[in-house]
Amino acid sequence: MPCHNQPLNNVTTGQEHSLTKHVRFAASSSTSSGAPVVPCAEVEDDVNKQRVNGPNGGGLGTEFLNLGPQLKLLPLNNQILELQTIIRDKTTSRGDFVFCADRLIRLVVEEGLNQLPYSECTVTTPTGHMYEGVMFERGNCGVSIMRSGEAMEQGLRDCCRSIRIGKILIQSDEETQKAKVYYAKFPPDISRRKVLLMYPILSTGNTVIEAVKVLIEHGLQPKHIILLSLFSTPHGAKAIIQEFPDITLLSTELHPVAPTHFGQKYFGTE
Amino acid sequence: MPCHNQPLNNVTTGQEHSLTKHVRFAASSSTSSGAPVVPCAEVEDDVNKQRVNGPNGGGLGTEFLNLGPQLKLLPLNNQILELQTIIRDKTTSRGDFVFCADRLIRLVVEEGLNQLPYSECTVTTPTGHMYEGVMFERGNCGVSIMRSGEAMEQGLRDCCRSIRIGKILIQSDEETQKAKVYYAKFPPDISRRKVLLMYPILSTGNTVIEAVKVLIEHGLQPKHIILLSLFSTPHGAKAIIQEFPDITLLSTELHPVAPTHFGQKYFGTE
Amino acid sequence: MPCHNQPLNNVTTGQEHSLTKHVRFAASSSTSSGAPVVPCAEVEDDVNKQRVNGPNGGGLGTEFLNLGPQLKLLPLNNQILELQTIIRDKTTSRGDFVFCADRLIRLVVEEGLNQLPYSECTVTTPTGHMYEGVMFERGNCGVSIMRSGEAMEQGLRDCCRSIRIGKILIQSDEETQKAKVYYAKFPPDISRRKVLLMYPILSTGNTVIEAVKVLIEHGLQPKHIILLSLFSTPHGAKAIIQEFPDITLLSTELHPVAPTHFGQKYFGTE
Amino acid sequence: MPCHNQPLNNVTTGQEHSLTKHVRFAASSSTSSGAPVVPCAEVEDDVNKQRVNGPNGGGLGTEFLNLGPQLKLLPLNNQILELQTIIRDKTTSRGDFVFCADRLIRLVVEEGLNQLPYSECTVTTPTGHMYEGVMFERGNCGVSIMRSGEAMEQGLRDCCRSIRIGKILIQSDEETQKAKVYYAKFPPDISRRKVLLMYPILSTGNTVIEAVKVLIEHGLQPKHIILLSLFSTPHGAKAIIQEFPDITLLSTELHPVAPTHFGQKYFGTE
Repeated sequence: MPCHNQPLNNVTTGQEHSLTKHVRFAASSSTSSGAPVVPCAEVEDDVNKQRVNGPNGGGLGTEFLNLGPQLKLLPLNNQILELQTIIRDKTTSRGDFVFCADRLIRLVVEEGLNQLPYSECTVTTPTGHMYEGVMFERGNCGVSIMRSGEAMEQGLRDCCRSIRIGKILIQSDEETQKAKVYYAKFPPDISRRKVLLMYPILSTGNTVIEAVKVLIEHGLQPKHIILLSLFSTPHGAKAIIQEFPDITLLSTELHPVAPTHFGQKYFGTE
Repeated sequence: MPCHNQPLNNVTTGQEHSLTKHVRFAASSSTSSGAPVVPCAEVEDDVNKQRVNGPNGGGLGTEFLNLGPQLKLLPLNNQILELQTIIRDKTTSRGDFVFCADRLIRLVVEEGLNQLPYSECTVTTPTGHMYEGVMFERGNCGVSIMRSGEAMEQGLRDCCRSIRIGKILIQSDEETQKAKVYYAKFPPDISRRKVLLMYPILSTGNTVIEAVKVLIEHGLQPKHIILLSLFSTPHGAKAIIQEFPDITLLSTELHPVAPTHFGQKYFGTE
Repeated sequence: MPCHNQPLNNVTTGQEHSLTKHVRFAASSSTSSGAPVVPCAEVEDDVNKQRVNGPNGGGLGTEFLNLGPQLKLLPLNNQILELQTIIRDKTTSRGDFVFCADRLIRLVVEEGLNQLPYSECTVTTPTGHMYEGVMFERGNCGVSIMRSGEAMEQGLRDCCRSIRIGKILIQSDEETQKAKVYYAKFPPDISRRKVLLMYPILSTGNTVIEAVKVLIEHGLQPKHIILLSLFSTPHGAKAIIQEFPDITLLSTELHPVAPTHFGQKYFGTE
Repeated sequence: MPCHNQPLNNVTTGQEHSLTKHVRFAASSSTSSGAPVVPCAEVEDDVNKQRVNGPNGGGLGTEFLNLGPQLKLLPLNNQILELQTIIRDKTTSRGDFVFCADRLIRLVVEEGLNQLPYSECTVTTPTGHMYEGVMFERGNCGVSIMRSGEAMEQGLRDCCRSIRIGKILIQSDEETQKAKVYYAKFPPDISRRKVLLMYPILSTGNTVIEAVKVLIEHGLQPKHIILLSLFSTPHGAKAIIQEFPDITLLSTELHPVAPTHFGQKYFGTE
């Protein structure tokens, strides 16, 4: 059991846990496209590489998926694992699904805020002590990608009471089948802001890539984008980071089987 | 800056940060009782020891405060640091204080829940995959120590919708000046539950020690108690753990100067 | 169906509804102490009187319980009725109970805030229009009576982000059996504030009466107290108002059978 | 002052208040299109008519705007008035704006839920009494009209934990300037549900009319639609009800000057 009889910040324990638990789909190497992944939490000696099984699935056929420092996974713990389990379980009621999704979103949002720039400051306590703390800089905003990204808006607002939240809708054009931007509404000065881009499930990564392109058209630099997601496939994460090497991508899990039913179940439109 | 250009689960970065930032009171070695502390996040090679400066405050006069594996500190990051800063700042408005306290409480509660026992389980996803996850066991409850501990009740309820919450009031007897239990209300079967004991500021530790005694009188074993706090002094943490070596103590910080105005400011009864 | 095909503010419909529905306990005249009550919503011609059946329970044996203008009942509607029903139902799960109690509390809090003094003001809209509105005056606070009154604290805070909240604990002395104040913590300037006193179930009214006495000892005038409750017996409401004719008492229902299990079920300490 | 020294359910007082306060724009008869309105709360003798000044603005030039029983206004009180004032005030901070908008939304949602069909039921209390209560029927859902309608989703979810929420995006076609549906996602069985349609500001009513048309195309009957709004112009309300006489329209105010900046300020995309 991770963290048991150990300080929380002793990551070694958590990593041992990862080694034995992270391949959580019973037969994922056969049922998926041959690329079950063990998240980077396991990779103690090389934090910038995520190990995946090779295309042949052989024991030694592992290769490393170098996704670079932009990919950040929340430290896995059993609460997060339980939330992931409940979200994946097809027997979960909608009420429980929304409740657990909201909890996981909150944890991702807190970690996402942690990626934003800050500065040091000194404050005085009520007892007259000087305290050297930090203060996050202003000038951030959120952007949700419809429809599932909207599920993350309230979690962001619960942590940042008056943060501005833009929105973007991308759909396939009925005639050309190409991804097309149907709606985009951003804070007017978005090019000068850091953007928390919200989309819970990264499957192919295509929707996010289109969204980032729109943000770039509005003058934003990719290095000012922090992509908040709950679940990501290695393929999706790789596609996004290869296209935009300066983006920061945050998730709770890299796994080839993502719960793609997320948006429909969250909003009840399945 | 922690986590910058590094996966979140690479603790090395956070620890480097700790080394340079954790002694955050400008003159704490002189203004406090000579025991500024560097939390255990810094202590890579000995996770069970918390380093504090010795009584002489000399550069080499450090000794180690062995608090054992029961003491668990949340991994420090800049969001937590900002929340700690705002809570400590005497110029913070009550609205901001409550908002930031609630955010910090939520993080501690999430980590506290993570300490509870769980079991493995296998669920089926909507696409028919088998997924090996975990499920936390039932039979937990919360107990808040009045008055400041009550500030943590809603955070617990926000993570566990229908958790039972007991309460205990301890005050000094007007005549004898001894700590006396004025009120105690628990779930009837508390001796068979795991207890999340809530008290945000551990200063001397005396109030918590009295509360634990009451729980023991109700048949609870200390090993089934997880104490959730926001701020703790090394002295308070030591007193509690020496008295009850089996208790689990969770906090965001070990520092000799604790924000003892917490309860009064949170409830506005200063 | 109340309000159907009628503007909401046409109370006639609601009152017709009241006439047929308000005696909601199937055999309340026999199972209770002979005083089933029809709330004042029914009494169109005399808003200051609440009709109750007389002690003999005879058809003509009705007398009027004059509780004066201090007693204010929320306008009954079906949502409130459903919440009351779920709270009363012994088969309701704790999760649903807390959820519905919180909703009903929120409605009572909103109505309680509405009783506070306000002044008129003129604001300018973004399009340059002058708008004559109102602004509530500052200088209010909440006081919860332990333990069940604490269930209403979060609802108050959800409507008034930084309102100060005091607390009072009254219990029977083990030796003398007399009500005794064990704990009282108020904002220091409470005598100059309006107080929203929170206690969900008014049964005999004794606890509230003791609490008001404590507030008076702290310099508060009863006319500055607004008592927020969810359920009240006619007896309890009468006792409180006879003792303190200047207090304002707000509730959602006057009925001889109050759900006295409220606090235990809400906190799970039954 | 409404409700002062009077039971809340004595509407007479509120109506007297309405008479003196409801024309709240200082010069609305001149600055608006000649149709300042006094909401139906004032119209005691004819609940189905809303009085507006006639086109000539003469003192006797009043005519009646017959909007029928479908239009329902929340009973005005000072809390609602304050929320309306803060929302209209151009000096309000975004944090306060969102907070007050969320409170007003919650009140509208509670009243909207109250319009849904229910049935009577009998429950047993923990003390063994039979209680005749009500239970709302299942089979409802929410639909928000983008973008401002999305601000109301969380309020609905806060009252109905697992309600399904669809969404619709209507914009002017760039070429033809005609309203065009760009996105629509509903629960699959929406034709068999009651729909709470959410759009906070009814100005011309055109967007809502298009949205209702889409719902009808999905098999929904207008009589099963309850439109939840915060502010409405008489013109907008009239247009909607004339087009769909069976719809139920709920609002807190009928006034020719609506705060059309609502969505931009709420989301910070002005």
